[in-house]
Amino acid sequence: MFAKTTSTKTVTVRYPTKTTTTTTTTTSYKKKMKFGVLGTGGIAGKVLTVGIRRSGNVVLAVGSRNQASADAFAGKFAIERAYGSYQGVLDDPEIEAVYIALPSGLHKEWAIKAAKAKKHILCEKPVAPYTVDVIEIIDACKENGVVFLDGTFFKHHPRNKLIREMVVNGDLGAVTSVFSQFSCDFEPAKASDSIRHQPAMERTGVLGDMGWYTVRFGLHVYGYELPERVIGTIVRRYPETGAATHFIGQLHFSGNRVAIFDSSFGQMDTQITHISGTKAILALDDTFVPWKGLIDMKNPSAFVGPEQDTFKISKQAGVWETKVVEMGGVVEEVMMINDLVACVEGSKNWKEWAEESITIHKVLDALWESAEKGSLPVSLQ
Amino acid sequence: MFAKTTSTKTVTVRYPTKTTTTTTTTTSYKKKMKFGVLGTGGIAGKVLTVGIRRSGNVVLAVGSRNQASADAFAGKFAIERAYGSYQGVLDDPEIEAVYIALPSGLHKEWAIKAAKAKKHILCEKPVAPYTVDVIEIIDACKENGVVFLDGTFFKHHPRNKLIREMVVNGDLGAVTSVFSQFSCDFEPAKASDSIRHQPAMERTGVLGDMGWYTVRFGLHVYGYELPERVIGTIVRRYPETGAATHFIGQLHFSGNRVAIFDSSFGQMDTQITHISGTKAILALDDTFVPWKGLIDMKNPSAFVGPEQDTFKISKQAGVWETKVVEMGGVVEEVMMINDLVACVEGSKNWKEWAEESITIHKVLDALWESAEKGSLPVSLQ
Repeated sequence: MFAKTTSTKTVTVRYPTKTTTTTTTTTSYKKKMKFGVLGTGGIAGKVLTVGIRRSGNVVLAVGSRNQASADAFAGKFAIERAYGSYQGVLDDPEIEAVYIALPSGLHKEWAIKAAKAKKHILCEKPVAPYTVDVIEIIDACKENGVVFLDGTFFKHHPRNKLIREMVVNGDLGAVTSVFSQFSCDFEPAKASDSIRHQPAMERTGVLGDMGWYTVRFGLHVYGYELPERVIGTIVRRYPETGAATHFIGQLHFSGNRVAIFDSSFGQMDTQITHISGTKAILALDDTFVPWKGLIDMKNPSAFVGPEQDTFKISKQAGVWETKVVEMGGVVEEVMMINDLVACVEGSKNWKEWAEESITIHKVLDALWESAEKGSLPVSLQ
Repeated sequence: MFAKTTSTKTVTVRYPTKTTTTTTTTTSYKKKMKFGVLGTGGIAGKVLTVGIRRSGNVVLAVGSRNQASADAFAGKFAIERAYGSYQGVLDDPEIEAVYIALPSGLHKEWAIKAAKAKKHILCEKPVAPYTVDVIEIIDACKENGVVFLDGTFFKHHPRNKLIREMVVNGDLGAVTSVFSQFSCDFEPAKASDSIRHQPAMERTGVLGDMGWYTVRFGLHVYGYELPERVIGTIVRRYPETGAATHFIGQLHFSGNRVAIFDSSFGQMDTQITHISGTKAILALDDTFVPWKGLIDMKNPSAFVGPEQDTFKISKQAGVWETKVVEMGGVVEEVMMINDLVACVEGSKNWKEWAEESITIHKVLDALWESAEKGSLPVSLQ
């Protein structure tokens, strides 16, 4: 049943595939938007440096719990205005959008305040500890006429959009299984070194952090269909706090289809996924943060985005083709900001994407419930 | 946390690693053993052609349910003696060992009869529908002073022995997760075309067939430690018979370690495994039937075994090293027969390996029980 030889060839795929457009980087919006950042953690620095500024927009202000922290961050990243409170950013009439980079336990309060202040919102994930809170945030955005986008940058990568198109088009045959693993080697000496290891700040630990990506990749492949049932298991907890640091699970979709995931804070960095269909297997080993799109945070101004990202596909056992997606020097974080601005300008519809944010939180809630019940299956429908 | 560049280099590993020996193919036994084969299916042809004969031993007889089938098989493979019953092989005083290539539902009867007839046994897997039957077979072999080996050829591949050594030596750090997928595109038009799709012949369907490999690979990595608990799920059943055709599961070992597996008769051929440790990730995409060791059954006499097989290891995200294992032109099926003969001659101990056969059956029984209970976790300890 297997092929006798092993070979590899390279095929270039330009995205989008249905037009003659050869670049994904055209921005259709007209004006620079002015962003404020809530929070001064590592992720804040990365997204604002790579995403907001490189997309041609402006980081006008930062807000922190205290003035010293805000000043330090503003100095490091050359930001004009530093507020010693999050409210300071919301009170600034020139700010049009906020990037909420706080622990998820604080998102609901500040997202709803931002919506009421008529600021558009890019919110780090998980959006909130429970689905009901996410719905409340999104409802507040709708009521106040502002855009809401969760910060899942891989969703905006043309490679992943192309992969979804290939699934829909049947290029892999019928897809029956998705495996996704995202792990890193991150074991702090004490919990106070990491909000990830403090359940009061990040309720589901690694599930909401690395697991967010692996669960969402399965949902992405299956078009954000709600699974019929899930099984979740906490493999390991951080001894000091009980935070989940290794979580595995299964999502069971209609028609005998599954997604399996594995995420840990205690494994060598890996981000491997396989999509298995009746006609082909599709594989990635840099699914979420493509190796070619990595930025050196010590010298971000020297960064040039990738010209290409790749993935692999096998239609005959042992024979892999490398597919190339043109990136035009743009990273997925920039594409995410471009999409946010397109939503503000009305050329894209954020409300469909907000439904995806709600769906993943429903799945995460069910996975956590399953884990707390000793891995009993939990129905979602 | 991730590397910025992607690169690959190749390193040659000679196995065994602890000596200066550069070949794995030396056979230490002195005489040719005479084998009889019970059954005339496809697997019988493959193992006898590749394994028994190329290891320097003799296929003297074949037994089938009827004379016509035995004659046809004997003619095709140039076998001297054709018996119209399985008993005929056991009654032949010149036969020293039998290869039992029947559906697993028939193994117990014929393995115990073979043991009583003082024939050494190589038995296809699963060995029997239930663990108690496997124990009975192995006890019969011990009582009658004959060797018993299940036909898990990948166990005898030096690559997999080396991988286990690397795990024990800590080359990957602490191993916390093993993922293994083995699938093929095999959906018969009707159940009568395939014993695999008839629960009366193969009770657990794909679990005992493709799942045997994936479950056993996890056990192999963890040194055949019995998991504390397992969760099994039948994802799909064959409509005509209800046979399991897609099965996924989890094995939970002591110390927060897991093995995850996925096996299907309805996916493009794939045999992907990842071993994830705190220091490195090890990957294979031809774990069980190495691409380089595949034989063209239409022209088996032209076959030359591989000089090398490979695997990959990553100690830095995005950077993979290809490791090469010298094979000396010998395939894993031949190594399995060599190991069987070494057991007969007393230079290797089959009883340790028989414990591994019992362990995997305990795990398969528990996985099936879990699946039948709607994926409830089943404890093994």
